Amino acid sequence: MAAKTFRIGIAGLGTVGGGVVELIRANKKILANRAGRDIEISAIAARDKKKKRGFNVGGYDWAGKSEDLAHRPGLDAVVELIGGAEGPARKLVEQSLKNGRHVVTANKALIATHGYTLAALAEKNKAGLLFEAAAAGSIPVVKALRESYAGNKINAVYGILNGTCNYILTQMRETGQDFGTVLKEAQDKGYAEADPSFDVDGIDTGHKLAILAALAFGVKPDFKAVSLDGIRKITATDINFARELGYKIKLLGVARDYNGKIAQSVEPCLVPAASSLGAVENVFNAVFLDADRAGPQLLTGRGAGAGPTASAVVADIVDLARGNMIPAFGVPAAKLKTAKAMDTGKTESRFYLRMTVLDKPGVVASVAAILRDHNISMESILQRGHDPGQKVNVVLTTHHAFHADMKAAVKAITALKAVSGAPCLLRVVELQS
Amino acid sequence: MAAKTFRIGIAGLGTVGGGVVELIRANKKILANRAGRDIEISAIAARDKKKKRGFNVGGYDWAGKSEDLAHRPGLDAVVELIGGAEGPARKLVEQSLKNGRHVVTANKALIATHGYTLAALAEKNKAGLLFEAAAAGSIPVVKALRESYAGNKINAVYGILNGTCNYILTQMRETGQDFGTVLKEAQDKGYAEADPSFDVDGIDTGHKLAILAALAFGVKPDFKAVSLDGIRKITATDINFARELGYKIKLLGVARDYNGKIAQSVEPCLVPAASSLGAVENVFNAVFLDADRAGPQLLTGRGAGAGPTASAVVADIVDLARGNMIPAFGVPAAKLKTAKAMDTGKTESRFYLRMTVLDKPGVVASVAAILRDHNISMESILQRGHDPGQKVNVVLTTHHAFHADMKAAVKAITALKAVSGAPCLLRVVELQS
Repeated sequence: MAAKTFRIGIAGLGTVGGGVVELIRANKKILANRAGRDIEISAIAARDKKKKRGFNVGGYDWAGKSEDLAHRPGLDAVVELIGGAEGPARKLVEQSLKNGRHVVTANKALIATHGYTLAALAEKNKAGLLFEAAAAGSIPVVKALRESYAGNKINAVYGILNGTCNYILTQMRETGQDFGTVLKEAQDKGYAEADPSFDVDGIDTGHKLAILAALAFGVKPDFKAVSLDGIRKITATDINFARELGYKIKLLGVARDYNGKIAQSVEPCLVPAASSLGAVENVFNAVFLDADRAGPQLLTGRGAGAGPTASAVVADIVDLARGNMIPAFGVPAAKLKTAKAMDTGKTESRFYLRMTVLDKPGVVASVAAILRDHNISMESILQRGHDPGQKVNVVLTTHHAFHADMKAAVKAITALKAVSGAPCLLRVVELQS
Repeated sequence: MAAKTFRIGIAGLGTVGGGVVELIRANKKILANRAGRDIEISAIAARDKKKKRGFNVGGYDWAGKSEDLAHRPGLDAVVELIGGAEGPARKLVEQSLKNGRHVVTANKALIATHGYTLAALAEKNKAGLLFEAAAAGSIPVVKALRESYAGNKINAVYGILNGTCNYILTQMRETGQDFGTVLKEAQDKGYAEADPSFDVDGIDTGHKLAILAALAFGVKPDFKAVSLDGIRKITATDINFARELGYKIKLLGVARDYNGKIAQSVEPCLVPAASSLGAVENVFNAVFLDADRAGPQLLTGRGAGAGPTASAVVADIVDLARGNMIPAFGVPAAKLKTAKAMDTGKTESRFYLRMTVLDKPGVVASVAAILRDHNISMESILQRGHDPGQKVNVVLTTHHAFHADMKAAVKAITALKAVSGAPCLLRVVELQS
């Protein structure tokens, strides 16, 4: 290669860091052809140099602290794979950018929380800040939103963004087991953490959604504005009712632009089983975009793991080595708007509602009357089993209705004497692609 | 905008050209934010200035001949939307590149046929040559292969790349009508040309596949190396048998790298109905990539039409305005290898075979014996109807077998007295994503 070697420092040698080292070694020649120059790992910083890894780290310079990579002479870019919105990861990224050093990161919490400040810092110091791996792993959706849909206004983003949740929901559907049992299995297989709340309560999906919404709508990422709901409440009963109705339950991150007001939520939704999104199973991720003129777009692939995440990180490194420089969120930081929150009560959706009711005459009539009084039109109603005087499950789906109306109706339904426990209310999402 | 306005000349004002003009006008501010400078249409060349269009062309400078755009002073890029592998389109692109002028084109025939020469010409003259719209319309697969999978070795590309064919096959399945009837309807709706052979015989898919294969495998595009088969032979009977077996029939472009030898074909295949690819219906396109480390990737969206194609063209324009310069096929032209063709007879696949046979004892035994003698293992066999002494359809599927063996077996089966007409042999493709 005639051009100067592109030298990187890697901070963090966990699953992803190891994957990046392995990829850069294995595909060295392909990378040099594509980048137009050699890519070299010049320094590594990780907690424990002696930890047993699948590869030899002896050949690399070892930085004392990760933060040293921000100052270390001779580096073109720092690759931050430590994780976490604060602490050493944030320090390293900030300091590197202040020094005009390019940064590649897989850190979704950091970008979802401090993305705007970091983008402005990068711009000010003429450094690149790339984070393809921070949303949906191997799926090239960050670049796609930043560059491929540069001509389009994006109206909405829908994503299956957490492989752990999608795996659990898929297995619940396939085995008929309940959430707790499948979670336990996922933990045994290493698909879920010992403390699963980051995944199953929607936080991880929320981080990724905030990043995608910022790219899609040209707003500052704002994780705090994302309303979070998880999958703990989903029962085998719901999965089965959904199946009967032709749907699967998926944890979706949903962001939509309502004429400049942005609604962002993470929630389990029903999607048609026969749709492209419905076909995305197990640990796979998917991002659905509703773009003006281009129309619906769906991108699917693996969302996590050493190989998929490393692929995204290395693509960013090659981009920098090629000399591409685009603002982190596709427009100059000063042009990123502060998103106004859309009142979700004023948004419309179709709904799925499951209630446990006493099997006696008149209950369905009462429920129907409440819906009517809230301007909600039923689409279908199902009752499984018939057991006079006992509790049975009743499920209904609605046509489009306002969230606020639906919530008020559910409150009134819950107050009925014949209804026991909290009803399960889920959105029904129909997407064509 | 502080930076200099980016000035383009557009050649060709058909559906796509009109879409590009409309998009650039409507999203002017979004584009300026993203490109970091204004984008301006400075000149247009089309056959007929007076033709009635949905927008006013009076405000633009009118070039006499499209070729003039290659020389016209003050232009930063030429957008070629004329079409055709030769003639004015080729002349304009060549001349523009020779003059160091960037080119954006939607011309699949041109890139599939002359892509290597043009890429080398662009490089020599430090001009950009971008063609996102030349494969799969709005789906950002050209950029994805060139940039997002820069770290990966791609093993295979599978694509539903022709909306006309996918529409026809979807409608055949949904209505039970035969090819001719549905083609006629598609023509009436404007989804198919009066002379449909470009679409239904696989030529258009072949052009797109040659481009994707070049990007995926780092080889010179070679349309002549693509073996072409179309959908005229698909009957309602085949569609129904496929359905019974859990499949849909899709026209796929398939390219695979066998250790440096490339197999490229366009052919109708069976894909699982419940898969992501199976869910891609009507005019939608899809590209499935098998990437090392990243794993399977599927991208879907609209493959044609004014809006989707214009979106891809404008994304390329913004890329150039941003100053990005990447070799046309992701690596310098000199690094593009001349692909060696893989002998498809030596490739393996599962198969679907439909035969029309006399309903009499022993026919299935004869067929089974022929398969056994060619080392082909049957997976399932179906006969619909029972009508002793009359013709009935028999369908079988196989486990993985070599193409050459399968073809020899079909030849022997065709020669059986009890078999009438030509059997229908299709590949069965199982992809996980």
